[in-house]
Amino acid sequence: MTLPSSIDINCDMGESFGNWRMGSDAEMFPFITSANIACGFHAGDPTEMRRSVRLAKRHGVAVGAHPGYRDLEGFGRRFMVMTPDEVADSLTYQIGALDAFLRVEDMELHHVKPHGAFFTLLRDDHEVGLAGARAIHALAPELIVYWPAPSLGIPFCEELRQLGHTVVGDIYPDLTYDKDGRVVIQRLIGDTDIAFAVAQVNRFLTTGEVATQSGATVTIDGASICLHGDGADAVELATAVRQAVLDAGVEVATVSR
Amino acid sequence: MTLPSSIDINCDMGESFGNWRMGSDAEMFPFITSANIACGFHAGDPTEMRRSVRLAKRHGVAVGAHPGYRDLEGFGRRFMVMTPDEVADSLTYQIGALDAFLRVEDMELHHVKPHGAFFTLLRDDHEVGLAGARAIHALAPELIVYWPAPSLGIPFCEELRQLGHTVVGDIYPDLTYDKDGRVVIQRLIGDTDIAFAVAQVNRFLTTGEVATQSGATVTIDGASICLHGDGADAVELATAVRQAVLDAGVEVATVSR
Amino acid sequence: MTLPSSIDINCDMGESFGNWRMGSDAEMFPFITSANIACGFHAGDPTEMRRSVRLAKRHGVAVGAHPGYRDLEGFGRRFMVMTPDEVADSLTYQIGALDAFLRVEDMELHHVKPHGAFFTLLRDDHEVGLAGARAIHALAPELIVYWPAPSLGIPFCEELRQLGHTVVGDIYPDLTYDKDGRVVIQRLIGDTDIAFAVAQVNRFLTTGEVATQSGATVTIDGASICLHGDGADAVELATAVRQAVLDAGVEVATVSR
Amino acid sequence: MTLPSSIDINCDMGESFGNWRMGSDAEMFPFITSANIACGFHAGDPTEMRRSVRLAKRHGVAVGAHPGYRDLEGFGRRFMVMTPDEVADSLTYQIGALDAFLRVEDMELHHVKPHGAFFTLLRDDHEVGLAGARAIHALAPELIVYWPAPSLGIPFCEELRQLGHTVVGDIYPDLTYDKDGRVVIQRLIGDTDIAFAVAQVNRFLTTGEVATQSGATVTIDGASICLHGDGADAVELATAVRQAVLDAGVEVATVSR
Repeated sequence: MTLPSSIDINCDMGESFGNWRMGSDAEMFPFITSANIACGFHAGDPTEMRRSVRLAKRHGVAVGAHPGYRDLEGFGRRFMVMTPDEVADSLTYQIGALDAFLRVEDMELHHVKPHGAFFTLLRDDHEVGLAGARAIHALAPELIVYWPAPSLGIPFCEELRQLGHTVVGDIYPDLTYDKDGRVVIQRLIGDTDIAFAVAQVNRFLTTGEVATQSGATVTIDGASICLHGDGADAVELATAVRQAVLDAGVEVATVSR
Repeated sequence: MTLPSSIDINCDMGESFGNWRMGSDAEMFPFITSANIACGFHAGDPTEMRRSVRLAKRHGVAVGAHPGYRDLEGFGRRFMVMTPDEVADSLTYQIGALDAFLRVEDMELHHVKPHGAFFTLLRDDHEVGLAGARAIHALAPELIVYWPAPSLGIPFCEELRQLGHTVVGDIYPDLTYDKDGRVVIQRLIGDTDIAFAVAQVNRFLTTGEVATQSGATVTIDGASICLHGDGADAVELATAVRQAVLDAGVEVATVSR
Repeated sequence: MTLPSSIDINCDMGESFGNWRMGSDAEMFPFITSANIACGFHAGDPTEMRRSVRLAKRHGVAVGAHPGYRDLEGFGRRFMVMTPDEVADSLTYQIGALDAFLRVEDMELHHVKPHGAFFTLLRDDHEVGLAGARAIHALAPELIVYWPAPSLGIPFCEELRQLGHTVVGDIYPDLTYDKDGRVVIQRLIGDTDIAFAVAQVNRFLTTGEVATQSGATVTIDGASICLHGDGADAVELATAVRQAVLDAGVEVATVSR
Repeated sequence: MTLPSSIDINCDMGESFGNWRMGSDAEMFPFITSANIACGFHAGDPTEMRRSVRLAKRHGVAVGAHPGYRDLEGFGRRFMVMTPDEVADSLTYQIGALDAFLRVEDMELHHVKPHGAFFTLLRDDHEVGLAGARAIHALAPELIVYWPAPSLGIPFCEELRQLGHTVVGDIYPDLTYDKDGRVVIQRLIGDTDIAFAVAQVNRFLTTGEVATQSGATVTIDGASICLHGDGADAVELATAVRQAVLDAGVEVATVSR
């Protein structure tokens, strides 16, 4: 297999809400090449979105929409049943809202990345997945879509590829993978094992694989590394991961379609 | 003064929320030339927005955004203090969300009309008014703005005009006007006096004036008539008002910039 | 088996929210003996709760709490994953809020009835069920609990019984039952087949059974009949069901522990 | 005038929401004698309320309800118009919800303290104030009410006193007072001037007065000192204020009716 000569680093941004702060956004921007900005449903609010878009502009970081469940209390991490139409319309709404802040700043929407358990719904309910893919395409026919690797065989991702979209596999350095090579989503994220994250990034960049919880390895199709800005050691992790990329002789650069 | 040879008829649409229905939208569309669609803050939800936009398309009705307070419980009719930035960002968000549904349908956003007490805030807090006007301009530099007549001397409207926007004066046939010629916003709207509404429309179209609560008359700069679809007799009122326009020899047509 | 000599009739009440009306509450009260009042999470708001409690008092109807998911947009009918603690705390909160309105009116809380998909979660997640039962017991150690029949073998119901609570089996005249004798919850409820409902009530009162979707019959442990006030023909259905009870020689009376 | 021989120290608690943390609650409890727990409208959620009540129990701290506007985004600090009935019902709902968590822990509700701009509404709209006082009395006829001093002449407070309630004047060591001796409520609270706070506490305990923004002094009727747990230096401030009380020879003790 061909290993990547460059890789994107993305981070969820704009997850504060009203007076509640979350994430060290300003400190994380120097480490990343693309930002997933919350759209007000699971996190974020209009003023936070404007602030995040401007921060991204100042740092030359590409901006994607990070749509999620309308569940502030559960931070979008509680699986909820929705109909295909509801999901499609929710995507249109959230992506459209974020795009407005980009237009005002003369920026272009770079990608969309489904958040938390909303991602799980798009993955596991095939009708929902198809409806979601078509809604994204109808609104932005060339939009890049970020997806936690692996994306092969997922109806949402296959439909997007068929419609001409680039699906970017997303790697989580600090999360574990189950036996099917799927990342494990958690309600609350605890302390980060930075050595583990560095090793996972290094393994991926040099072999194209990650280790699973059972100790086996699995090949995944990643083109971006996902950091989180809400841990106590977020900046430390970002520094270590970025260094691990450079140590592997890989360039850090925004992904393009 | 010159009386209008044609007039627009607009109606608030898409005010249902989840399982709660409001308004006889499908029945009202034949009577109107422009629709103000709620953007999910004071009313409406993503699926309702998609439905409303499609209904408008089928009826050839121009669509505007109807942004309001984030106050479902109060239906956006409770005055709330917000900062200029919050109002600007809220407008960007809501207008952007609605515009996404229009883009999917290959339609263009025709106008914006502030809703309920959000309108009051834009009118009475001058800093907020200026910030709101600039937010609208930054997102959509040629957008028409509907405003309950009279709009002269209102900082929000003056700023919009200076930035090149057309401000369309909105007439409320079924509401009363106070001594300053300002329409009286109510939390709950009761039964409609259709004869009163017909007389008010007729007076306006033939003289350019409306009567105030005290019995005086005042000239107002109207180019659109606002109907409501949530009364028990909404269709009856719409029929009567449209007939009153035709009886006055005035054409019913969407306003253009 | 022993057939009931009296039966309770309950109805979901207080499901309006802000300016959105739902249900013909005032017209339904004369037909019922107990009311399940929404607690502001899936429907209802504080003012609606006060109004509903006062209506119940005037009609001599027993009042229960009707807690649901915090999901106004989905009317609490979208299944959502919650932790046992979250469910327990949500029950404490919602029941406590409703109870306050009863205390102000010198009324006692009669029962609790989980709403919509929140009921499904309490039924299907056993840890959640146990946590929910214990939360109810901790707050109100003698509270009656309404539960869509059948309740046997459900951990939530078994735990409640063991803690000394009466579990009242609830019968849905206008809904269908699946092959396991479980009522089918729908997002949107359509037109009611009144003849079907009357037949179902009559069959239950005279045989203790309901028919399943496949045509078989199943015995269920019902002591209350659930009406809905939000259909176009709600009053017609209520009249017919109440008459069917009387025709079967059964008394209509509130259930007591 | 008689100076107090003992004084209460209260703090707003339970202001986290979902995954968003706010305040150093666990660290603040040792310094206080009464806690104002958010009720889920401007801050807090059911699980946070349960946690806060248990923390208070463990520390032997009296618990009060801290009801606010239903405005998470604005943290209840945006003034909003509500009708007297809405305010009364909102108080019943929020106080009842918190009380349920206390009942489960065999604790008694000690007081109620209106939050943020909700306090401003109760102060400035006299009809609202009377309705709020009566709602509190109807639910809890002997409840203590905390109120930012001065409370004399405020219809809400006068009505409560007439109904037999104790109104406890609340002193804000770290906020400034306007020329009428009224505390200035802010949307965002910045760094704390600890020396200022210590001086303000000392002045109040030794003279019964606070300084106003213009440099004058005004006598206020305080029996409790309000700390905030959400500043970066909250614990430092709490330590200093508590020491200032002891240094003045005044005992720290929960207020009783």
